Amino acid sequence: MKTNLKPTTCLAPVPAVMVTCGDEIENNIITLAWVGTVNSEPPIVSISVRYSRYSLPLIERTGEFTVNLVNQNLLRAMDICGVVSGKTQDKFALTGLTRIKGVQVKCPYIGESPVALECKVVRRTDFGTHAVLFGEIVNVIADEEYVKDGKLNLPNGLLVAYQNGNYTATGETLGTYAFTAKDIRK
Amino acid sequence: MKTNLKPTTCLAPVPAVMVTCGDEIENNIITLAWVGTVNSEPPIVSISVRYSRYSLPLIERTGEFTVNLVNQNLLRAMDICGVVSGKTQDKFALTGLTRIKGVQVKCPYIGESPVALECKVVRRTDFGTHAVLFGEIVNVIADEEYVKDGKLNLPNGLLVAYQNGNYTATGETLGTYAFTAKDIRK
Repeated sequence: MKTNLKPTTCLAPVPAVMVTCGDEIENNIITLAWVGTVNSEPPIVSISVRYSRYSLPLIERTGEFTVNLVNQNLLRAMDICGVVSGKTQDKFALTGLTRIKGVQVKCPYIGESPVALECKVVRRTDFGTHAVLFGEIVNVIADEEYVKDGKLNLPNGLLVAYQNGNYTATGETLGTYAFTAKDIRK
Repeated sequence: MKTNLKPTTCLAPVPAVMVTCGDEIENNIITLAWVGTVNSEPPIVSISVRYSRYSLPLIERTGEFTVNLVNQNLLRAMDICGVVSGKTQDKFALTGLTRIKGVQVKCPYIGESPVALECKVVRRTDFGTHAVLFGEIVNVIADEEYVKDGKLNLPNGLLVAYQNGNYTATGETLGTYAFTAKDIRK
């Protein structure tokens, strides 16, 4: 039996990430789930930031941001970075996360994040509550243990997702894209 | 130790969904992972569709699409809908999925999907390989078993994510958003 519900932001699972922004002088960490991949070549992601957030003018000023993927060890720090404001607190100091100088962008990345995507803003669009910033991925920084033959090779269950108000674990691989192709073509 | 990798679409985990489009006469199912939430009020999602896809003109014609969330029972059907083209095959017939008439939009939704988000296109932006369509969620259709007090209440591990070429299970709830707030404010 089906039922109709009031429209809400219930797409799930979505990524749970920490975005870093700013430069060496002034920078911040913002926890976001309204992020996604929007283009393959070149690789472009979108991040949606509420207009009231301290991070938005930092991103506007440099035209850059870094998406730090989150593993279970980072869960508590990620939640803290979604609860307090960079206006009044240095979130790196508060969480103990390691601030590392960016490689291709001015904003720092989080040393404890297994994978960081350095991005340059290429376009923006604005909706009612959120600014949507599109960032071309210009560099990927990964822990060496998660790289194999020059490509990312993340273990099952490493990353964290977000689903209707909760942080959710990821689990086993269920299949590889196109696993049905050989049957279909028969 | 950190290493720098060639930029690729490695944001993860992202949603693995089936998008339905078209009308009662001509319609299709397309499997997508380049989708995300972009605005809270009103709730708006984005879906990115390659220019070559059969579904793109269907979405353009009606200005509507439906995002069908995917549970593990739908894994095989989802993969098939990502491998074959609606140009040559009726994917509902091929997969055995149930085509149900939409409530607030002309496009059908998938009866076996636990949650379907009916969307009306409100804006579009174009990048190199993908058209990004922004859809305001105008109705949410859910299986009654997943609704509690008028809200979605999805069990742990129901939905499927996508991560670097693989479909991935979701698992247990690790925490609720703002679970650290009471400690931080002390």
